[in-house]
Amino acid sequence: MKKLIKNCSVLLRRGPTDYTVITDARVGIDGDSICCVEWPEGKLDGGCQAESCSAPGSCCGGSAYDQVIDAGGALVMPGLVNAHGHAAMTLLRCVGGGLPLQRWLEEAIFPVEAVLKPEDVAAGTEMAMLEMLSTGTTCFSEMYDFPDADFEVIRRSGMRANVSRVGLCFDPELDPKDWPRTRECVEFVDTHRDPADRVRAEFCFHSEYLTTERFVRAIQPEIAARPGVTLNIHLSETAKEHEECIGRHGLTPAEYFEKLGVLGPNCLLAHCVWVEDSDLEIIARTGASIIHNPSSNMKLGSGFAPVAQALDMGINVALGTDGTASNDDLDMFEEMRLAALIHKGEENDPTLLSAGQLLDMATVNGAKAMGRRDTGAIAPGMKADLILLDLSGPHMQGPWLAEGGALPPEALVYCAKGSDVLMTMVGGDVLYDRGRFLTIDRDRVYADFAASLRGIAERMKER
Amino acid sequence: MKKLIKNCSVLLRRGPTDYTVITDARVGIDGDSICCVEWPEGKLDGGCQAESCSAPGSCCGGSAYDQVIDAGGALVMPGLVNAHGHAAMTLLRCVGGGLPLQRWLEEAIFPVEAVLKPEDVAAGTEMAMLEMLSTGTTCFSEMYDFPDADFEVIRRSGMRANVSRVGLCFDPELDPKDWPRTRECVEFVDTHRDPADRVRAEFCFHSEYLTTERFVRAIQPEIAARPGVTLNIHLSETAKEHEECIGRHGLTPAEYFEKLGVLGPNCLLAHCVWVEDSDLEIIARTGASIIHNPSSNMKLGSGFAPVAQALDMGINVALGTDGTASNDDLDMFEEMRLAALIHKGEENDPTLLSAGQLLDMATVNGAKAMGRRDTGAIAPGMKADLILLDLSGPHMQGPWLAEGGALPPEALVYCAKGSDVLMTMVGGDVLYDRGRFLTIDRDRVYADFAASLRGIAERMKER
Repeated sequence: MKKLIKNCSVLLRRGPTDYTVITDARVGIDGDSICCVEWPEGKLDGGCQAESCSAPGSCCGGSAYDQVIDAGGALVMPGLVNAHGHAAMTLLRCVGGGLPLQRWLEEAIFPVEAVLKPEDVAAGTEMAMLEMLSTGTTCFSEMYDFPDADFEVIRRSGMRANVSRVGLCFDPELDPKDWPRTRECVEFVDTHRDPADRVRAEFCFHSEYLTTERFVRAIQPEIAARPGVTLNIHLSETAKEHEECIGRHGLTPAEYFEKLGVLGPNCLLAHCVWVEDSDLEIIARTGASIIHNPSSNMKLGSGFAPVAQALDMGINVALGTDGTASNDDLDMFEEMRLAALIHKGEENDPTLLSAGQLLDMATVNGAKAMGRRDTGAIAPGMKADLILLDLSGPHMQGPWLAEGGALPPEALVYCAKGSDVLMTMVGGDVLYDRGRFLTIDRDRVYADFAASLRGIAERMKER
Repeated sequence: MKKLIKNCSVLLRRGPTDYTVITDARVGIDGDSICCVEWPEGKLDGGCQAESCSAPGSCCGGSAYDQVIDAGGALVMPGLVNAHGHAAMTLLRCVGGGLPLQRWLEEAIFPVEAVLKPEDVAAGTEMAMLEMLSTGTTCFSEMYDFPDADFEVIRRSGMRANVSRVGLCFDPELDPKDWPRTRECVEFVDTHRDPADRVRAEFCFHSEYLTTERFVRAIQPEIAARPGVTLNIHLSETAKEHEECIGRHGLTPAEYFEKLGVLGPNCLLAHCVWVEDSDLEIIARTGASIIHNPSSNMKLGSGFAPVAQALDMGINVALGTDGTASNDDLDMFEEMRLAALIHKGEENDPTLLSAGQLLDMATVNGAKAMGRRDTGAIAPGMKADLILLDLSGPHMQGPWLAEGGALPPEALVYCAKGSDVLMTMVGGDVLYDRGRFLTIDRDRVYADFAASLRGIAERMKER
């Protein structure tokens, strides 16, 4: 199936952090991938990359398309990658506001999570996907309970995601062989396959404080034996976590996980608010990615991750929303804008974090962290994971209108909203189009979500 | 004219920072004011406050209405008050990104402003009002060049605003009597009247660094002679400004303006990022208001204003967007969310700034700062400055659905978006309704705005 998006402008990535917008463009899609990007003065990669193309010199003009999408002047840009989150926490949105992280977990979050059922997680994640799709996210990282149910509803949605069985082990004396979760974490990776390869199973150690050294050591060889499978870890999110790890092991969390041999390019290290300079050196050396969650880190009073410094050191930094109990939404445009602003404020330096760095963090860097180098940019050969962004709102008008109208990339970081998203496409499939969800029954999800919440409330009362 | 909004929930302010949402409610409007708020279990202020009410015991049931608005389950909440900004800077949106404030002003902003004409300012402000109305702002503070043109387009829009002739004087040797701006600033206040009293003229000293002591002393008696007229000042926005003021006068900007006798409850002090403890004591003692502009202060690398401390001291703190060259939008929901997050992050304290404090800052506190105590809350006797907020989006669903569905006020701060605004009403008049602007010709404004930008670009080239 070939599709053509015409009458659009396109956000092009000319190189790392280097973006420009071309106008009067056309984007060709062949199956699940972009095959050509053309505009009056040029084309990417010498023309169409589709195997079936009959006119490789001028694809968009020469080929027949099964479907032509008139973008009406909207912008084609890569779908956003939400590289850290817990989607089903829509069920806990706004719960426990004003509590610090440990009390928030123990008093507000864990009691609810203790009564969750698989169908609740499915409903919560489906509600999350409605929000993500309608605000331009095409790919996300998911770490939560009942990942079997989670994996299945995500697979049905057509979104791209990495999902894990959460690696948890509380008792340092416990032999991991006697702890079912050890086997389950590995089995989850081995048994969950999406024929379309949109959803992938990954490994996870929740954190240093919710795992044990024996547990990590038991799983480490399994990770090493499966190259390419990603590994998700919360790292140095709070001062308390960071200091207590040093107290327990004489090592920072980064030093601890490096010692256990699990840090590498397949690692997503969420938060990294309290990492020290030497930790950043470890992260840079091992090639792990930092996933920055600005809303959550502020809401819980955790602080500001040293993102500008990490980028300077060449670390791959991506963005995530975290769960909606600490955000409290899943809008990656908002997260991008926040990340653009807070570090300038924190370090009194308006030159920190360019718009190009932010766009990279919200797209290709997240894709790289998630082991998906074939998504995150609009170019031939890349997966057709893209969004159409409405540029007609008053907040998107500015001085560029005097000179041809090509949007400066800055406007995508500082002005664009999730609500500007008109259409969201993953692997060439339209999943969201102007208020309509094509693969998720919105009304059914709303009913399931409300029913789950009522069931949870009842079970909480019974406890 | 009497109007009834039915089938709505309502955000009620039970007291300072104390909010709750009632469901299944009705709001009656008599002329330009709210006359009653009722729900099945109760009503505010003993029933209808309309003079013409024939059934004061149960107004919403007993009276005839000229218009009934079915809110379809949306939330009625007060319109937001943007208490500091420069609306026409939509013409400079995203200009000069990455520059610190002084260079940003001198290299990016002033050269454009030097070629502006009154019709440009009118077009820029009209574009800003389209954005503000569609994201729920009903009242704003405006400080910019060509305030005559500004005043007129704002008056025609039906929005509430305070507008000033910018108080500027650069030469310490200059006798204010020989400087036309001295007279113009006072004349602006005396000659600009809106019969509907929605737009008011106010005084302004741009800042310590763009005025002189003689200029301030010349205007101070004029301000004192006009009690109730507000006064707009940029104060301690950057470290450079704050330190240079101390260098010039041996006084901080707050001490300097207090010495000159101009600080009082009518004062809006914008930014206050670098104010010292003793400055906060001056502000508290004089009853002046702090206008917090989190986006702008971060974008320009200025820093974080000590907002939590100011609130603790009883200072009236309101919110503003500043101009779109340093924000780069006019979305007060976004500003409220930012202000809720950044101070928790900065001080590692998730208990700082409650949702109620944020809602106050974005509504009644701004209204108080602007000398408009009759707007900013939904209650009989208050002006009918209100918005209808769509609660149906996936980002607005959460655990409260299990228990009657009344939204927690937190969700308005952390989840709601400007794009959720369905309708914006000022003084009982609907100015925006689901994409339509009732008092501003959107297409004409877009054409004017583009024409102005082309004219500006041409005049810039000629210089």
